[in-house]
Amino acid sequence: MDAEHGEHGERGDLDPCVVGVDFGTLSGRAVVVRVRDGAELGTAEHMYTHGVLDRELPDGTPLPPAWALQVPADWIDVLRHAVPEALARSGVRPGQVIGIGTDFTACTVLPTLADGTPLCELPGLDARPHAYPKLWKHHAAQPQADRINALAAERKEPWLERYGGKISSEWEFAKALQVLEEDPETYRRTERWLEGADWIVWRLCGTYVRNACTAGYKGQYQDGAYPSRGYLAALHPDFEGFVDDKLDQPIGQLGSAAGRLTAEAAAWTGLPAGIPVCVGNVDAHVTAPAAAAVEPGQMVAIMGTSTCHVMSSDRLGAVPGMCGVVDGGILPGLWGYEAGQSGVGDIFAWCVRTGFPAEYAERAAAAGQDPHEYLTALAARQKVGAHGLVALDWHSGNRSVLVDHDLSGLIVGQTLATRPEDVYRALLEATAFGTRTIIEAFESAAVPVRELIVAGGLTKNALLMQIYADVTRRPLSVIASAQGPALGAATHAAVAAGAHPDIRAAAHAMGKVHRAGYLPDPERAAAYDRLYAEYRLLHDHFGRGGNDVMHRLRRIREAASA
Amino acid sequence: MDAEHGEHGERGDLDPCVVGVDFGTLSGRAVVVRVRDGAELGTAEHMYTHGVLDRELPDGTPLPPAWALQVPADWIDVLRHAVPEALARSGVRPGQVIGIGTDFTACTVLPTLADGTPLCELPGLDARPHAYPKLWKHHAAQPQADRINALAAERKEPWLERYGGKISSEWEFAKALQVLEEDPETYRRTERWLEGADWIVWRLCGTYVRNACTAGYKGQYQDGAYPSRGYLAALHPDFEGFVDDKLDQPIGQLGSAAGRLTAEAAAWTGLPAGIPVCVGNVDAHVTAPAAAAVEPGQMVAIMGTSTCHVMSSDRLGAVPGMCGVVDGGILPGLWGYEAGQSGVGDIFAWCVRTGFPAEYAERAAAAGQDPHEYLTALAARQKVGAHGLVALDWHSGNRSVLVDHDLSGLIVGQTLATRPEDVYRALLEATAFGTRTIIEAFESAAVPVRELIVAGGLTKNALLMQIYADVTRRPLSVIASAQGPALGAATHAAVAAGAHPDIRAAAHAMGKVHRAGYLPDPERAAAYDRLYAEYRLLHDHFGRGGNDVMHRLRRIREAASA
Repeated sequence: MDAEHGEHGERGDLDPCVVGVDFGTLSGRAVVVRVRDGAELGTAEHMYTHGVLDRELPDGTPLPPAWALQVPADWIDVLRHAVPEALARSGVRPGQVIGIGTDFTACTVLPTLADGTPLCELPGLDARPHAYPKLWKHHAAQPQADRINALAAERKEPWLERYGGKISSEWEFAKALQVLEEDPETYRRTERWLEGADWIVWRLCGTYVRNACTAGYKGQYQDGAYPSRGYLAALHPDFEGFVDDKLDQPIGQLGSAAGRLTAEAAAWTGLPAGIPVCVGNVDAHVTAPAAAAVEPGQMVAIMGTSTCHVMSSDRLGAVPGMCGVVDGGILPGLWGYEAGQSGVGDIFAWCVRTGFPAEYAERAAAAGQDPHEYLTALAARQKVGAHGLVALDWHSGNRSVLVDHDLSGLIVGQTLATRPEDVYRALLEATAFGTRTIIEAFESAAVPVRELIVAGGLTKNALLMQIYADVTRRPLSVIASAQGPALGAATHAAVAAGAHPDIRAAAHAMGKVHRAGYLPDPERAAAYDRLYAEYRLLHDHFGRGGNDVMHRLRRIREAASA
Repeated sequence: MDAEHGEHGERGDLDPCVVGVDFGTLSGRAVVVRVRDGAELGTAEHMYTHGVLDRELPDGTPLPPAWALQVPADWIDVLRHAVPEALARSGVRPGQVIGIGTDFTACTVLPTLADGTPLCELPGLDARPHAYPKLWKHHAAQPQADRINALAAERKEPWLERYGGKISSEWEFAKALQVLEEDPETYRRTERWLEGADWIVWRLCGTYVRNACTAGYKGQYQDGAYPSRGYLAALHPDFEGFVDDKLDQPIGQLGSAAGRLTAEAAAWTGLPAGIPVCVGNVDAHVTAPAAAAVEPGQMVAIMGTSTCHVMSSDRLGAVPGMCGVVDGGILPGLWGYEAGQSGVGDIFAWCVRTGFPAEYAERAAAAGQDPHEYLTALAARQKVGAHGLVALDWHSGNRSVLVDHDLSGLIVGQTLATRPEDVYRALLEATAFGTRTIIEAFESAAVPVRELIVAGGLTKNALLMQIYADVTRRPLSVIASAQGPALGAATHAAVAAGAHPDIRAAAHAMGKVHRAGYLPDPERAAAYDRLYAEYRLLHDHFGRGGNDVMHRLRRIREAASA
């Protein structure tokens, strides 16, 4: 045992390690992980200088409502700062690092030249909003998405059903069509239209490989093909060649190497040039291996502001209201399913923002609790059903299984005795009912859900976790890492580097899950069955046209606000 | 012009005056009124020493939940303090006062000896809860009310439809049956079971006259008869003689004299002995003449914690969900209708209690506004429908037209952008939709509503008033007195004293209304028609069994809380 060994003890020794980098909405995080057991040896975060551009460009050019852009240089800064910092904190020698993997928000897309130079970095284009990357939550392409959907339905495009019958305005085609229609000059100069997930990998290794995940989920790539030229021409005459001219690129399977770290990128990161760089991936989907969820039927719910459900299966089923079903979308060789709830943590935040009275705020402060902790503690004392409420969790629309973003929230059962903690608990429960609805949609389509695993920021709320276990009548497993996406990217990097034969093996070695951390209580589960039956009655009545009041109210609201 | 005249100027001179005394839940108010024009010359309030006994008797004897009692001596104190004080403030000479009238909460009932002595004042009975007056909001007789209703429905008792098919637990028979079943000894010693409204008149003039209003609305007196002995015996063998032995008494028409002021009462009040004392009345109903609403079809909505709608009509219609239809119940010679909304101001108070965040509280305090003023000011800036919400105003159940106290609140249309002022406005609107529903129930039953007049504490909210005008598409008249019930009692006193030939004439001379103070705006009214259509869809779906979730949630809640 040499001095070096002694110094780093059990932390890294000379064991092979990988680096995972998670590019989020406001910052990027890097983590240094030991490949044999997934030990997270060092981590660092770097905030984007420009964050989200949703009001103006860096030069002050104003942006319309619903826009959300980013600056590519901010992403490079994560490589230059967070990676070296995580490495330094880990005590791992650069030479021990055998690979790097990344994940990204999606669909975040940008226009570049053929060499990958972002258009927004070209002289004369830095004041053009359409030259910048469009962040996932850029929602200004809804008119384009509406036409994409209407035309696809009219033409019975075969890929449409893989997306629950509806393409999102967040995705590649809608955003590209918006550029074409609103800024034809920028569209004309666009030589590549690509995901941030693939752009960052291109910057790392000098090779542009399109990852199978975003190609399928965000690029409508199904059964080896994109939407046809005829379909695109019918959308807009100048859109006919979009795929052939700007989008198409060899697809890289997840966990494979896109190339090797360039000297430039080695200088940014402090990592050895020439190590394998894994193909890109999406933050939600890459969390599955981080939670060791690599078998068919292991569903991972990443619970934060919203919830994303990802699951691989060996069966292709017509599950209603999926965000997408993609061959190899999560694991090569399996069908990857993505479903989601468009509002979860943000509904709880809304509840606190609007339903947390001053006297509660005072008592919470006195108890040293934040509003969520305080309301959760009060709510936890209640028996199931004691508040007399049922809510629909559609304050931000419904992503699965209704695929209707114009739905809205509902709560029933209020009396003069209803308290803030009652409403809060009813909203926690409503999101659990939403997850149960999604699980039942899978099972009804003969795509079995064998285990429910949760990840994301909301896992810290023990009451919420117990409610999910009771409502779904399933043992709840919880990811045992605070860095799910970055750890997942690291597992992919380990595979690309050859340290593990495939993602499944890497996930078993490196993924971390607290198996069955919450067990359903039979009595509570039975009580929840009754409330869930009420939820489903309301769900179907208001979500499937029994009473279309939510759509009418939205139109009334929009007309009144116009 | 003598010195006396000069001293009092236009206040009272030697004009004849009357005194009206309003016995409320926590206090009594007296007002001295000039008979020729209704000028309110002096007023005074006296708080009840014991207020509402809802936890324990004065001696500390604990009370079960849902009990609410009062102490008769507190009522006498109003005569001893508020009346002389109002008289002193008015500058009116006692000799100018030609009559006195009263109104009371109802149904507030008490057991007495044959001479009117309250049982609770007898030695040895002061520790017996059932010996005390049961205040209107004593709700512990619900089991008795349930049996009264079930049996009446089973036997098809003819009076049942006059009460919307349901007798309240607040009324005379339910409360009396509770005494019989829970304290037979006190029941046995009860020689008279009578309304506070009639007891106070008895104390003033020495004569027990049962007023036509409470006899009909609270005593099930219809078409000259009470419920039959056979029916009462079927409720409880010992209840068979209840009417004959304890309840029956000559009925006095409203506005007639019950007797003349006794020397004892003259000493209490400082008024001349021998002046006429008017028969009793109920606070809501007596507000009609105070608002000069004495013609068929003039509906008065007394809006406070809850809303009571009273209206006289020359037509007897089967209006669904009435609290009661009583011959001469408001004005002799006309059918008096009473309808109501069980939650109005208390729903707005609940909204402030649970949905008024700390930052709003700070801004309201900085603006010098109370929460209602602050939310109202914010809500007033909105266009109709801009909040995208519709609510059902059933947080305290539904009195009319569904007659179902187990219904509960609902709100639909919430998004992450929904603010406290949005919810507040939606609740204001929901109560207006509730009033429109009641008006339409009258009109559908061919009982025309010709004018809508509002009274009560909520009239001070101009936004709320305008919403009612817009929603109902009717000019809204507003009572022009802050002492509606006491002024109404004074108009009755003037009739009993012969200063006006009847209540109609007295009301025209003394009643005060700001005619058409709020006019409906056609554009807003049209916008509200669309929201009202949504309200009615939800109203009928959740209120008439389309989805009985509210009842199921209540049962679940009760089971969980048991």
